[in-house]
Amino acid sequence: MIRAVAALMLSPLAGGCVAAAAIPAVAGSMIVKSQMDKKRERRVEVQAAAPAQSVDTPEGRVTVIKGMTALPPPTGTPPAAAAAAAAGGAVPETMQYLYGSGESAGLSMQAYRALADYLTKNVVYRRRETLRQVVLSDGSSLNAPLFEPCGAKPLAVVLDIDETAVLNLGYEADAARRGGGYDDARWGRWEASGADKVVAVPGAKAALDAARKAGITVIFNSNRSNANATATEAALDHAGLGPAKHGETLWLKGDDGGGSGKDDRRWAIASGYCVVAMVGDQLGDFSDLFNDPRMTPAARRAFAATSPVAELWGNGWFLLPNPVYGTGLKGGFDDVFPTDRRWSDPAEGVK
Amino acid sequence: MIRAVAALMLSPLAGGCVAAAAIPAVAGSMIVKSQMDKKRERRVEVQAAAPAQSVDTPEGRVTVIKGMTALPPPTGTPPAAAAAAAAGGAVPETMQYLYGSGESAGLSMQAYRALADYLTKNVVYRRRETLRQVVLSDGSSLNAPLFEPCGAKPLAVVLDIDETAVLNLGYEADAARRGGGYDDARWGRWEASGADKVVAVPGAKAALDAARKAGITVIFNSNRSNANATATEAALDHAGLGPAKHGETLWLKGDDGGGSGKDDRRWAIASGYCVVAMVGDQLGDFSDLFNDPRMTPAARRAFAATSPVAELWGNGWFLLPNPVYGTGLKGGFDDVFPTDRRWSDPAEGVK
Repeated sequence: MIRAVAALMLSPLAGGCVAAAAIPAVAGSMIVKSQMDKKRERRVEVQAAAPAQSVDTPEGRVTVIKGMTALPPPTGTPPAAAAAAAAGGAVPETMQYLYGSGESAGLSMQAYRALADYLTKNVVYRRRETLRQVVLSDGSSLNAPLFEPCGAKPLAVVLDIDETAVLNLGYEADAARRGGGYDDARWGRWEASGADKVVAVPGAKAALDAARKAGITVIFNSNRSNANATATEAALDHAGLGPAKHGETLWLKGDDGGGSGKDDRRWAIASGYCVVAMVGDQLGDFSDLFNDPRMTPAARRAFAATSPVAELWGNGWFLLPNPVYGTGLKGGFDDVFPTDRRWSDPAEGVK
Repeated sequence: MIRAVAALMLSPLAGGCVAAAAIPAVAGSMIVKSQMDKKRERRVEVQAAAPAQSVDTPEGRVTVIKGMTALPPPTGTPPAAAAAAAAGGAVPETMQYLYGSGESAGLSMQAYRALADYLTKNVVYRRRETLRQVVLSDGSSLNAPLFEPCGAKPLAVVLDIDETAVLNLGYEADAARRGGGYDDARWGRWEASGADKVVAVPGAKAALDAARKAGITVIFNSNRSNANATATEAALDHAGLGPAKHGETLWLKGDDGGGSGKDDRRWAIASGYCVVAMVGDQLGDFSDLFNDPRMTPAARRAFAATSPVAELWGNGWFLLPNPVYGTGLKGGFDDVFPTDRRWSDPAEGVK
């Protein structure tokens, strides 16, 4: 097992820090307990503070701290980041889950396997006359979706980019160090300069390779700015997901006259292609109708789960996990928890 | 659209609070902006504080607060909860995502559709001699997994329960109100008394109905205590996922002599059934090997994504999202963010 772990250190997913055998027995046993029984997970996490450890990796000396509540003294990081780190920039749980867990890696691979199976075992074997766009036609509602026939248009799959095709590790690591909220200007500089600091979402490359091999054009539809088109093409290439060419297989914000919804771009793409699948991490990657401001989070969730378009999940529409940012992170107590599912601890004598 | 929203208020997923048309235009427009461009989502969220609103629903008068940072004065909640609420019990983002978002609902339906398709379009049509257990045999490693042939054993699908088959809305709503960490004693009382305060994970009922209709036995393997077996059977019935009978189709902690891993129970189940699929929200729901204490989060993620068993995601092993608790929520900065993917904001003049 030790050798197996060491071998995996070189995989792009393993990252730079594997302290496999270096974890003290005491911390190890606590981790066993915590991992062997997920019900006790959170409590044990609080207790499982172990001393910092440094290990040498192919990428240099790395410090690993268990149960950390603040970052170790940063090395080679900008002063601002060091300050934020000193102020206590522990990695948020949403980032631990999306960027660091085997669970989210497996969830992403499962989604991309479903996409590849759908394209190569279903779509390509269907009679062309039976194919319809999975893009909702103009005039659709979520309760009355309309899908146009494809005719003889070439097949295409349309994907969002951020946290759908690539993980923005560079930006999010910087954001985790700083703490605080989203910085739109900084995101713009990230789009322009971070091309070599992204990785492909697990499973994405294999699925897109399979789609292209099956003769299905891969097209990206993103709200990244078209002012940074070249850098975004480079980011997709770096992640192994290219080629993407702006104006042909890459559509960005500003391309459709500035609208920040994605429907206009979807309809422009569908005018030239039979869009047989869409992939995203936000409901807005499938239809702008999900962003109707009149919908509470509970109503929006109900539309996703019970309206006619719910039949499309895993069946033309493919979702990737993203608890880190976006339209899923909304709602007060009564939005998230139905009133008929409230529970009072009987030990407090209130029923 | 308004009427459509109103209709959906009665769906179990819609919850008790739909303020559809009641959102002030100003808040509405800000939500449009935020939802229309996910890149600006987080910044707009910070700004989009709107006044509290009360609306009448079939379940009574409900208060909805946008951009809330503290709960409204609780009604009918225990004193301790009221205190915690006053102390500021905003819903954590992980709960907003898992229990409140359309994104996680779609992700769950996609996973359960993949399970149903796998069982009804793949497994049941395969020649019995070709079927193997998807449970790793004793003596397996993640790099050298072993799967025993099934022989003539009846087919079964094995599922975890919490945040895999059911959402524990009652416990988590209470936990969100209180803030603070996991309480093992309270969780025990929840297992014993919360049977009517859970809901099925979106997509679970349809998939399990399809499995049973195809002659595949549905078996649950959970770390809930076998002391609460009757209440857990009731919870599954209440969610529409039963019947489950302790000792036959329901395996709980303590059943196998007290071990808190799940492999012993998996092997006991596989001795009588051909386990053709497993479903869970934690890697430990598939093999205890993922809980090896020598693995850092980065190594664990690499095993999930690049070892031979990675081929099983969506292909015998089916994952549900859960960023709220569990083994995925681990790791310090260097565990989560590979050192070769660090980015420095060029505006700060550090490269």
